Amino acid sequence: MLDSVVEAFPCCCLMQFFAGMQNVSQHRWFQPEGAERLRVSAGNGASQAGWSLQIDRGVCVRSAGEDVRLRDEEAAPQSQPGLHRPLTSLPRLFLQLLNERLMGAEGTKMDDDFLKMEKSVEVLQALLVELLSRTTEFLQPHPGARAKLSVLNTMSRIRGHGGGAGYPQTESMLGDCMSHYGRELGPASEFGGALTEAGGALQEVAQARDALGVDIKRTFIDPLEQLQNTELKEIRFQLKKLNGRRLDFDYKRRRRGKVPAEEVQWAWDKFLLSKELAERSMFVLLQSDVDQLSRLAALVAAQLDFHRNAHRILLGLHGNLQAR
Amino acid sequence: MLDSVVEAFPCCCLMQFFAGMQNVSQHRWFQPEGAERLRVSAGNGASQAGWSLQIDRGVCVRSAGEDVRLRDEEAAPQSQPGLHRPLTSLPRLFLQLLNERLMGAEGTKMDDDFLKMEKSVEVLQALLVELLSRTTEFLQPHPGARAKLSVLNTMSRIRGHGGGAGYPQTESMLGDCMSHYGRELGPASEFGGALTEAGGALQEVAQARDALGVDIKRTFIDPLEQLQNTELKEIRFQLKKLNGRRLDFDYKRRRRGKVPAEEVQWAWDKFLLSKELAERSMFVLLQSDVDQLSRLAALVAAQLDFHRNAHRILLGLHGNLQAR
Repeated sequence: MLDSVVEAFPCCCLMQFFAGMQNVSQHRWFQPEGAERLRVSAGNGASQAGWSLQIDRGVCVRSAGEDVRLRDEEAAPQSQPGLHRPLTSLPRLFLQLLNERLMGAEGTKMDDDFLKMEKSVEVLQALLVELLSRTTEFLQPHPGARAKLSVLNTMSRIRGHGGGAGYPQTESMLGDCMSHYGRELGPASEFGGALTEAGGALQEVAQARDALGVDIKRTFIDPLEQLQNTELKEIRFQLKKLNGRRLDFDYKRRRRGKVPAEEVQWAWDKFLLSKELAERSMFVLLQSDVDQLSRLAALVAAQLDFHRNAHRILLGLHGNLQAR
Repeated sequence: MLDSVVEAFPCCCLMQFFAGMQNVSQHRWFQPEGAERLRVSAGNGASQAGWSLQIDRGVCVRSAGEDVRLRDEEAAPQSQPGLHRPLTSLPRLFLQLLNERLMGAEGTKMDDDFLKMEKSVEVLQALLVELLSRTTEFLQPHPGARAKLSVLNTMSRIRGHGGGAGYPQTESMLGDCMSHYGRELGPASEFGGALTEAGGALQEVAQARDALGVDIKRTFIDPLEQLQNTELKEIRFQLKKLNGRRLDFDYKRRRRGKVPAEEVQWAWDKFLLSKELAERSMFVLLQSDVDQLSRLAALVAAQLDFHRNAHRILLGLHGNLQAR
């Protein structure tokens, strides 16, 4: 049945699967058990990677480029050639995946708590991606100016200059315009004087907005990026590994007669170990809810500070304008 | 000497001059006095307008398209053909302008007060153009969203729908993101609840910013645009007219022997009348300093309101977040 599954599956999918697996494993070779001869012509991506693939019945065929035999890290030491030739890990996972996806075979189900945590982590991950981009847009709404600033900062980092340019706040540009024309109108003009004063105040508001940007970057954006790059990345890796071990276990369990019982037990133990690790990491992350909450509070506090400062500056200006 | 000036002047400039004058006058014909034959081949712009031009010594030549004779509105009624053939107004102004620009002839100077007022009006005009565009950028910093909104509003105006879409405030987008993922995380998550709450508060801030936009449009942008389109436009027109009358007077004064004394006097009176009108308009505009000042105060007051509201909203949110 497995053979027919392999045959029914389009080559491109097979290639995609192996292209995806390239990151995980450097194995170029495998020897499937009892598969009909099947030539997989390499697609673009695969030919770039420099390997082609042949599956023969019970025969190990060499690839076009390299001469490295696929090692089955998890192959039981007692497995003897001829008697039982276990599939190496990658095709095992692949065939099990095919079996589940195409033939509707039931894999080992995770418990509800685990699934709930996994879902929460997924949401958190998507949330962080969008939240960080929206916060950046909130701080630097003009996309052109944002891109320019990013390039300038990168260049000044490469050149070793510190600091770099700041984002051109709209308050600052409006204030510049007012100050410039206020000076042009001269001190004799009442309106000119008021413009100069308003321009100065708006520059102060722009400085407060700059401080808001720095504040939010330090207390909100940086910690959340850190979270993305460490804990969440680790959890993603663990979940991927867990899924691999589950597929491996399900494959072996399904072939319980042909695969030795100890090997099935061993796969189960490794699966459980992986599950526990992933569970623990997810639990720790989701328990750090309070940390995220405090970061959100920091974002709000920074905005609160900005509005307070802006209000204070503009209140003084408004009083002066009224007095004129 | 005048002839040589005309000859020395490149045709393209002549064409530009007449192309510019098209708006002012529909005259296609004129009869210059004592000019050498001069063929002006029509440039692109002029040929589109459908006229070509020939200047012959003392002969009135018909244009390619129309057969309308140039009337000289200001020609003295007592001028008799043969004895004195006065130039029609457009070429008069043109020749005087050439004379001043190329030959450095001195025209009638305006008094210092007038020049000062003229300068102030120029500054005010430039100020309004930049101030309005900067204020719009301040309210709607994303150029793409601004352009899209403008198109949408125009379309809904054409279709007769009222209202139209609002500008997508960054606070609103950030708030949407928070609310969405807050709901996804579910009520069980403390962080999710806080996110939903923060999202709601940011939506309120966005509404306050919308109100700021409406307020500034009503109390600052619209009145200043009105000022641009009425008083300033009128003053621009009057200054243009005044310059024409000055050129006319200077031309006639320079040719005092050939032009009757009454005509020179008449040109002087008209110039003075125009000057007085322009002066009065500029004076009224510059005296309305206080109006502009009150508009500036309105802009500041609107911002003040916004920051006060935003501060109030965020203060409540911050308290709730701290309580969690």
